[in-house]
Amino acid sequence: MSADVGSAVISLAEELREILGEDAVLQGADTVQYHVDASEGRGLRAEPDLVVRPADTYAVAAVMRACYEHEVPLTPRGGGTGLVGGSLAFGGGVVLDLALLNEVFEVRPEAWRMTVGAGLRTDHVRRLGRESGLYFPPDPGAAEASQIGGNIATDAGGPHAFKYGTTGSWVLGLEVVVPPGKVISVGGRNRKDVAGYNLTDLFVGSEGTLGIITACTLRLIPYPESRVAVVAGYEDAARGCAALEEVLISGLVPAAVEYLDQGAVEASRAAYPGSLDPRTRFLLIAEFDGSEADVAASAPVLEEALSPAVQLDARASVSEQDDLWRWRDSVTGAVAALLGGKLSVDVSVPAERFAEALSTSRDFAEQAGLRLCGWGHAGDANLHSTFVFDPSEEGALDAAERCADRLLARVVEMGGSIAAEHGIGWAKRGRLGLQLDDGSLEINRGLKQQLDPRGLLNPGKKE
Amino acid sequence: MSADVGSAVISLAEELREILGEDAVLQGADTVQYHVDASEGRGLRAEPDLVVRPADTYAVAAVMRACYEHEVPLTPRGGGTGLVGGSLAFGGGVVLDLALLNEVFEVRPEAWRMTVGAGLRTDHVRRLGRESGLYFPPDPGAAEASQIGGNIATDAGGPHAFKYGTTGSWVLGLEVVVPPGKVISVGGRNRKDVAGYNLTDLFVGSEGTLGIITACTLRLIPYPESRVAVVAGYEDAARGCAALEEVLISGLVPAAVEYLDQGAVEASRAAYPGSLDPRTRFLLIAEFDGSEADVAASAPVLEEALSPAVQLDARASVSEQDDLWRWRDSVTGAVAALLGGKLSVDVSVPAERFAEALSTSRDFAEQAGLRLCGWGHAGDANLHSTFVFDPSEEGALDAAERCADRLLARVVEMGGSIAAEHGIGWAKRGRLGLQLDDGSLEINRGLKQQLDPRGLLNPGKKE
Repeated sequence: MSADVGSAVISLAEELREILGEDAVLQGADTVQYHVDASEGRGLRAEPDLVVRPADTYAVAAVMRACYEHEVPLTPRGGGTGLVGGSLAFGGGVVLDLALLNEVFEVRPEAWRMTVGAGLRTDHVRRLGRESGLYFPPDPGAAEASQIGGNIATDAGGPHAFKYGTTGSWVLGLEVVVPPGKVISVGGRNRKDVAGYNLTDLFVGSEGTLGIITACTLRLIPYPESRVAVVAGYEDAARGCAALEEVLISGLVPAAVEYLDQGAVEASRAAYPGSLDPRTRFLLIAEFDGSEADVAASAPVLEEALSPAVQLDARASVSEQDDLWRWRDSVTGAVAALLGGKLSVDVSVPAERFAEALSTSRDFAEQAGLRLCGWGHAGDANLHSTFVFDPSEEGALDAAERCADRLLARVVEMGGSIAAEHGIGWAKRGRLGLQLDDGSLEINRGLKQQLDPRGLLNPGKKE
Repeated sequence: MSADVGSAVISLAEELREILGEDAVLQGADTVQYHVDASEGRGLRAEPDLVVRPADTYAVAAVMRACYEHEVPLTPRGGGTGLVGGSLAFGGGVVLDLALLNEVFEVRPEAWRMTVGAGLRTDHVRRLGRESGLYFPPDPGAAEASQIGGNIATDAGGPHAFKYGTTGSWVLGLEVVVPPGKVISVGGRNRKDVAGYNLTDLFVGSEGTLGIITACTLRLIPYPESRVAVVAGYEDAARGCAALEEVLISGLVPAAVEYLDQGAVEASRAAYPGSLDPRTRFLLIAEFDGSEADVAASAPVLEEALSPAVQLDARASVSEQDDLWRWRDSVTGAVAALLGGKLSVDVSVPAERFAEALSTSRDFAEQAGLRLCGWGHAGDANLHSTFVFDPSEEGALDAAERCADRLLARVVEMGGSIAAEHGIGWAKRGRLGLQLDDGSLEINRGLKQQLDPRGLLNPGKKE
């Protein structure tokens, strides 16, 4: 923190206390939970000068106006479940906690729609839908802690994005606070709207660098009557990839097709709800949802496509499926627990390069002497290739970072994306130019310059 | 055309002939087919100074560079099937016909994907998918003439957008020529990608005002095994709207739910493939697609939701359905033929205001002494309220325009959109401020200024 920023922060803190009240402005030891987020495993940590907890949109606008006036950086934070350090205030400044903006403004079952505050937890959104017979499909990990605004700001994905698309696909409209502190509405409550440029999707996935999302109107659909999950174990990745291709040409549209590679299977084998065949070194989980008739007719087709497998475990009951998805969600933690450190590389490739991306991840890990655990969304060719290391071992994090960079470069050569669903954040800063051509980079920078001319919103991210 | 533009055009024409060849540059009488598009019924017409027919992306870039140098406006044109004059060069300049950019670069059935030139006809895109067992769902009208690039540039909708979303939902990546003549790639071939800001959806629906789309990578899905269409006739709109609500709370996700009001039913009654009950003054067409088992199970649920109706006509065979959709496509023409002139107002409202939007359209037409024919996408609450008039009658067009403006203002009060799927184009120029708040308008203008600083791309549109 420079001396200038230091004195700016002191007068800013006073001003913010006046606007928001004493309790809504935290400093020093009170901010400690905001020094880290779910990217802690890769060693990210940053201390903000202030944390504010505004209670509504107008308070968010007031905070932004004050930060803009004092030229102090402002970093919005949802549930802190991001994996790339997007919510951490590198370089200090103010962290804005959106948790109090959790109002439910409207649930309209007959219109398949709800409007809620950005701070509402994702599992609450899903539950509100469920109670009205409706389904909000996006299911990024950590739904019990993540907030819908953060999911939108990162365009969070998850297993069911295969059939249903990422979070952004379900956003009809947003309320956003943009610099220097103006409240705007983009999109709305209409299912179709081409009046202006698509500003809604400009804010979706912008990681809080163009504006702060304060409320959203979400689209929903009727809750699927039934679903079946099929777990298929293979002796190696090649056999698993062949089965995946069979699924994709079967004529079915599964809700999700997940994979776990050998490292991920080993790390989480003990916790598997059921028994995993000891020969299983690559796992696919395919889920199909729909009407009861459709699920009954499609389950055998799905099992056939996944065959031959060393094990095939079809789960028709909700409780068996819940157990399975809970286990799937726990893979991240199980992998983190292996040696204490992990660096997860979230990438996607064109579908026909999926097997190659798996083997490249394996080769690079082996060459670096690192252990690889890979899992993710096979149907979307979205890999989380995770390099596991002992953080107390000197140079281990550096080795993992070099390996990650090598993988990013290779993915770009394959026509893939360096950020499929976890964002760029701080962890991948400076890498955007790897993937984007000069013209696109220039447009990205122009957008940032136009919307946030002083560069104060979540600085250093999405670059 | 000012004298300056006049002399600029003369030297530009010479330059373009050198770049593209003599045959690719049209002037005078050769340009006559470009003076109108499908908006002719509302009296729109504009004469460009030149028409160019570039053969590839680099030629498009060269044309843009030349136009930018000479400061001559450039209006891209796809199939000319737009209804708001988006492809007409008001104020002159160059029209760029994209028809020759119709190459099929790649069809990848196992990856549910294809990459094609912007000039490829929409029905060709759909057929290419079908031949590989895949489905490209967007079905705006006039698929036999419209081009995929134009569909993307307008984010065209259509009946099946209800289940499947508009054209933009199916775009993975674009090749775009941006001022002053640079070729960029946005998005790509990946199903998930949050690396940069969402530039793909910035160009989708931008009506050629930010760049010219020259190629696209499209996502597809397996072709649905089966479908059923149910035609339900009602004595009035209120009964039809009640049935629509029953469909929306039935738990089904229909592929399409269309409506025709009394005027539209009367205009197209004679051509209906089958018999329409004489009591039918409001029609719903609901379609459900999926596996055979799903369709068999869901058809009775759909029929039940649509009941009671004065007639209920379930069509299970492809040929009966084709007849029905062909008829549905012909409604526009039948309405146009009534008196020779029509002004169609494409709007959407929040779903719960659909009945109100129908009755408001009716009231406004009646008060203006105009005949109303309304039809469109009931599930999306997307109305095409069409005021029919005799163009030879003095003041009739003006009366229709006043009525349309009154409806647009009312729709905005209802929280709706003044452009659901047909764009702003020239027909709705100057109306954007009705719907967008000041902050959003400012961002729209900033985007235009950033991407097209000289304002030469399709000037006067999307404003």
